[in-house]
Amino acid sequence: MSEKKSLNIGLVGYGFMGRTHSNAYKRVSDFFPDLGHRPVLKAVCGRTEDRTKAFAEQWRYESYETDWRELLKRDDIDAIDICTPNDQHAKVAIAAAEAGKMVLCEKPLARTAEESTPMVDAVEKAGVPNTVWYNYRRVPAVTLAKQIVDSGKLGQIFHYRANFLQDWTISADLPQGGEGLWRLDAAAAGSGVTGDLLAHCIDTAIWLNGSIADVSAVTETFIKERVHTATGEKQKVTIDDACIFHCHFANGSLGLFESTRYARGHKALYTLEINGADASIRWNLHDLNRLEFFDHSDDSTTRGWRSVHITDGDMPYMDKWWVPGLCIGYEHTFVHHVADFLASLDSSEPCAPTFRDALETAQVCDAVLASAKERSWKDV
Amino acid sequence: MSEKKSLNIGLVGYGFMGRTHSNAYKRVSDFFPDLGHRPVLKAVCGRTEDRTKAFAEQWRYESYETDWRELLKRDDIDAIDICTPNDQHAKVAIAAAEAGKMVLCEKPLARTAEESTPMVDAVEKAGVPNTVWYNYRRVPAVTLAKQIVDSGKLGQIFHYRANFLQDWTISADLPQGGEGLWRLDAAAAGSGVTGDLLAHCIDTAIWLNGSIADVSAVTETFIKERVHTATGEKQKVTIDDACIFHCHFANGSLGLFESTRYARGHKALYTLEINGADASIRWNLHDLNRLEFFDHSDDSTTRGWRSVHITDGDMPYMDKWWVPGLCIGYEHTFVHHVADFLASLDSSEPCAPTFRDALETAQVCDAVLASAKERSWKDV
Amino acid sequence: MSEKKSLNIGLVGYGFMGRTHSNAYKRVSDFFPDLGHRPVLKAVCGRTEDRTKAFAEQWRYESYETDWRELLKRDDIDAIDICTPNDQHAKVAIAAAEAGKMVLCEKPLARTAEESTPMVDAVEKAGVPNTVWYNYRRVPAVTLAKQIVDSGKLGQIFHYRANFLQDWTISADLPQGGEGLWRLDAAAAGSGVTGDLLAHCIDTAIWLNGSIADVSAVTETFIKERVHTATGEKQKVTIDDACIFHCHFANGSLGLFESTRYARGHKALYTLEINGADASIRWNLHDLNRLEFFDHSDDSTTRGWRSVHITDGDMPYMDKWWVPGLCIGYEHTFVHHVADFLASLDSSEPCAPTFRDALETAQVCDAVLASAKERSWKDV
Amino acid sequence: MSEKKSLNIGLVGYGFMGRTHSNAYKRVSDFFPDLGHRPVLKAVCGRTEDRTKAFAEQWRYESYETDWRELLKRDDIDAIDICTPNDQHAKVAIAAAEAGKMVLCEKPLARTAEESTPMVDAVEKAGVPNTVWYNYRRVPAVTLAKQIVDSGKLGQIFHYRANFLQDWTISADLPQGGEGLWRLDAAAAGSGVTGDLLAHCIDTAIWLNGSIADVSAVTETFIKERVHTATGEKQKVTIDDACIFHCHFANGSLGLFESTRYARGHKALYTLEINGADASIRWNLHDLNRLEFFDHSDDSTTRGWRSVHITDGDMPYMDKWWVPGLCIGYEHTFVHHVADFLASLDSSEPCAPTFRDALETAQVCDAVLASAKERSWKDV
Repeated sequence: MSEKKSLNIGLVGYGFMGRTHSNAYKRVSDFFPDLGHRPVLKAVCGRTEDRTKAFAEQWRYESYETDWRELLKRDDIDAIDICTPNDQHAKVAIAAAEAGKMVLCEKPLARTAEESTPMVDAVEKAGVPNTVWYNYRRVPAVTLAKQIVDSGKLGQIFHYRANFLQDWTISADLPQGGEGLWRLDAAAAGSGVTGDLLAHCIDTAIWLNGSIADVSAVTETFIKERVHTATGEKQKVTIDDACIFHCHFANGSLGLFESTRYARGHKALYTLEINGADASIRWNLHDLNRLEFFDHSDDSTTRGWRSVHITDGDMPYMDKWWVPGLCIGYEHTFVHHVADFLASLDSSEPCAPTFRDALETAQVCDAVLASAKERSWKDV
Repeated sequence: MSEKKSLNIGLVGYGFMGRTHSNAYKRVSDFFPDLGHRPVLKAVCGRTEDRTKAFAEQWRYESYETDWRELLKRDDIDAIDICTPNDQHAKVAIAAAEAGKMVLCEKPLARTAEESTPMVDAVEKAGVPNTVWYNYRRVPAVTLAKQIVDSGKLGQIFHYRANFLQDWTISADLPQGGEGLWRLDAAAAGSGVTGDLLAHCIDTAIWLNGSIADVSAVTETFIKERVHTATGEKQKVTIDDACIFHCHFANGSLGLFESTRYARGHKALYTLEINGADASIRWNLHDLNRLEFFDHSDDSTTRGWRSVHITDGDMPYMDKWWVPGLCIGYEHTFVHHVADFLASLDSSEPCAPTFRDALETAQVCDAVLASAKERSWKDV
Repeated sequence: MSEKKSLNIGLVGYGFMGRTHSNAYKRVSDFFPDLGHRPVLKAVCGRTEDRTKAFAEQWRYESYETDWRELLKRDDIDAIDICTPNDQHAKVAIAAAEAGKMVLCEKPLARTAEESTPMVDAVEKAGVPNTVWYNYRRVPAVTLAKQIVDSGKLGQIFHYRANFLQDWTISADLPQGGEGLWRLDAAAAGSGVTGDLLAHCIDTAIWLNGSIADVSAVTETFIKERVHTATGEKQKVTIDDACIFHCHFANGSLGLFESTRYARGHKALYTLEINGADASIRWNLHDLNRLEFFDHSDDSTTRGWRSVHITDGDMPYMDKWWVPGLCIGYEHTFVHHVADFLASLDSSEPCAPTFRDALETAQVCDAVLASAKERSWKDV
Repeated sequence: MSEKKSLNIGLVGYGFMGRTHSNAYKRVSDFFPDLGHRPVLKAVCGRTEDRTKAFAEQWRYESYETDWRELLKRDDIDAIDICTPNDQHAKVAIAAAEAGKMVLCEKPLARTAEESTPMVDAVEKAGVPNTVWYNYRRVPAVTLAKQIVDSGKLGQIFHYRANFLQDWTISADLPQGGEGLWRLDAAAAGSGVTGDLLAHCIDTAIWLNGSIADVSAVTETFIKERVHTATGEKQKVTIDDACIFHCHFANGSLGLFESTRYARGHKALYTLEINGADASIRWNLHDLNRLEFFDHSDDSTTRGWRSVHITDGDMPYMDKWWVPGLCIGYEHTFVHHVADFLASLDSSEPCAPTFRDALETAQVCDAVLASAKERSWKDV
């Protein structure tokens, strides 16, 4: 274990993602002791002072701010981590890059590809380390899936399918907008399940199976009006409650994607499956410690889907945790992301997905929404 | 048990479906003793005499024919059961109806809706009992799903998804056409997975969730040329190896369907799921004795997907078989279909799906194939 | 398909097992066409004439008897199949053997090893083909397990565990004795779950893992008194409701067995697992088309329990049925048993388990019950 | 969030358990902000200075010691946490209690009940808060199981079964003794799987189902000799590699327990099941976020085992973590234990399992080992 440099973090936003990121910064050095930097929780920034202060105390941030512009001015901040609603991502990220800060941005990069593009330009022009928190790449089972794909074991890929199913917005009594509910307001979120959930599926898909060439989509808004918390009045719901699309990947395989918040019985069921000529892979978020693997080269009478418990020390990231059979959880994906980000500082390599990587996902999302609107195929 | 009348069966075709139907006729009276008719295996008809004769001996048919027209002339035949390749369905069925025979036809009804329509006209004009062997309606778990849907327990339906995944045609060495492989030849089959597999999914979907209004599809033929067994030469493959479509149901729910023969690791995995506001249902053919059911009205801390083993006597058809916990298999669906057909003779009610019911499935299949070809939405 | 000889069956008893056996005789020639004999349902015998006659009509037996001694006198009967309550097995089997009939006997062979021994002597002295219907050996997944064990793939065996869990006798209102309920009356059944359920587990275990050397058991009767249907009065319950034992196998491995009719939520859950140094196997009756297999020689990062769907043509018995992915059910095990019995007539080899094989299971059951009674280890 | 008092921790031992406990102390205040105390990592103590120092640096302990007696003398230490091999527990715990420190002890309490008894006496005489880290009580699914049992939903309990299956010691090349392997040396560990794994199962069982009255056990040591790391020579293996026992609970139910390190394919598979007259519960450690629940009062046609994903905010501890569907892992059980220990300081209630609670588990373990040795039933 070498002497570590501090990496001073300035966190913007203290909601659900603010918690997951804070936890990751605090745990990474205990479990990844060989990295050159140790994150320090320097400051958290939020608009509401009492809440921001309470968050700082609970998580032991050294200080807090109520204006993110002040945060950017501080010399004791190395990296800005953006956990705001999506409509704030672009301006904070661009200003942070211009201020020479590293930038870590919650996904999706912004509400649209158009809004995302200057963010990419800004970090690349500034030459600052940057990454987008598509955390599911770093579920060990998913990382292992990537290694298996890269090994060529799957052979020619025929099919990629993924869905992300939830059921938390079925009640018509749920309002939209405001704290905790901005994801239901297209002005803040950009879109509904497409940007919130399918963006995860698309990021993983591009990583595992390459670029998406064209898409054909349908979206639906099942509940047309909801009370908006800002106005107290019923307003038209402008997000997509559900989105389905099929597509061609550049490698010739067919893709199938679905997301909804109206799939009764599913809480956060992100499922993916890849079918190759020689082998197939399947995974889901509700059982994240397992990878299912089918190898056609097994003896025919004992060939079946293997349920692999991804907890042994030779599996991705797992030498850092416990012993075989002992599960990790959702938040570990963020610890892994921070660890890889710190490693990227040591190696001066980019930490994927970068802003540029995330732009491609935004472009697919835009094509999906355009396809649904125009009822026609769209090239990405 | 009343005195039974004989129902004399004339089977046309002795392939895979010829076996499943023959078995069903032979078993039904042992397990459903209260029906008014007992099927009698009067004659089987096939083009190749030695094979037809061997089949007749193995299954103990009383006689055989090598020309189906001869079969229609026989007074000792009450019902014609059509198990030929799809391109033969229409002419045999129409002639059988015109000869006043009951007609049981393997699915799909014919290669297209256009070819199917005169079949419907024929049986309706003749007024003969008719049914199409969409056997999966009669998996007890699927029949129970129908009862649950009809009870209203699911509430408003938001999503219906189904897929039928196989992997048996991945090898490029597999030829097309001829015995056992006519399903790979569009001339005989009409289409690939759309008519062979998705037709099953569509039939069940319409039964469970009502009509399909419009569709947007994509198809793919992964292996472009295969040797044709008739010519011994490489010929263009004209079937769809894979087909995906999304759709709107008339009730406002979204549908998602996929079928492929290139999903490595899946043998005959027909899966369906319905998500309602209040409850959801899930089923798959590899575990056909189970129904998964999620009831949102359960206590929140013990609410989960129930894995229901559909083997108790109060479940559909199961009072006829064994005791709780003891599985039935694939072929029982055909026994149930025969039992229901016999019951329909007793009651003079139609036995669903009738030719007319199956025409709707053909219309959806046609819209799917047209949508894929023209890359646009198609109304059904 | 060769010319077949008739094998004339005389069935004694028409209860649950009478149905499963009758079905097996009727189906076997359709699916196993190459055997030298075709079973013919010659006669069924039962004490109550109207029920026996109704059974004969439903299953199309050519005749019926109300005294099994009459059956033995008939020259047109080749084989006696015993499906009576357990207390009748010995006398019928011994007389049948003495009459020179082949004998097929439902399990367990008799109520005790002492009662079973003269049965073994009788069939061996008479030199008649004989077998005991421990049908679970012939679930294709279990037969495959045997092939895997015999291949040596498992390496040294450390553990064998099996249980058979039911919940159908939990209600205190259930009476004992009489038709359908003789299994709850020790006078008729010999014991409770030990002879009814654990006997199955023991038969499979000896087949897969060799002899059992010694046992240590506990039994329990949760409901002490039940109305007896014969007397209409409350009587002491003399069967074991639950039985657990551990044991040493002759090969040095440890065994663990449990059976109960008080495991709420389990219908007929027979589960077995074998752990060897190199590989393990797991199976259960509720999902009988699957075998779970763990192979330690797989690559460490993709090693897991394989869920193998035992439906392909290269799996035991499955070339006789349908196509990959299509399930068979409980009753197919009896068809397989008949097929193997018929094959044994062709080859003049014994059809396992023979009466002698089944005697060993009876001896283990006796040791188990003695151990429980005396609260001490018992050698077998 | 109130002003928090510091709780200064002195950790003895820095092995696997040292890591899990350290992590728990560091995370608890972030996720359980309302507790009156905040753990402070004051000192870690180990015999090897360089390793102890490295551990202190990695985990940011303020100081370290190489003699635990020194630790007890320090006024700035409030609580001693014992993570040493089992043979060291008693002397450290007794001295710590005598020094007026709170004591948290890794399980099992000591090697035997005899060795454990003075530990109980010491903490009770000193009146110091004490607890034993039987962490699996605090898997949310297991805690929920306890709530369900306490609610009476299960009705009369008939069966309790649990096993803990591993496969990590199958290789004969594995040595015994020394760091990381002291669990294979009876001198240090007391016993093999009985104290290491079954002790967990027994603790949970007593908690859920009450006291165990008597036991009948068998143990096995499959590999008789292994190289000892201390001497470099082959020595007799004195631990139990496997242990099976059945028992009566005081409430009249039957218990069945098994543990082994020779169950190929299982990493750390702790499974438990309770069968009551009205409902049943099942859980396993490999899928720790799920609880399976069977409720016999459900409608009969849709009754099945519910797979409940224990991640919603109304489930035990889960309001502190993420959102529905997002998993937690193994180490969270220790965070929960610390949180409950801190809460017990606020309330001045004991934090179960106390030393006294853990003594009962030790007594059962002793009876199990005596029963196996003497091949007879033993009262607890």
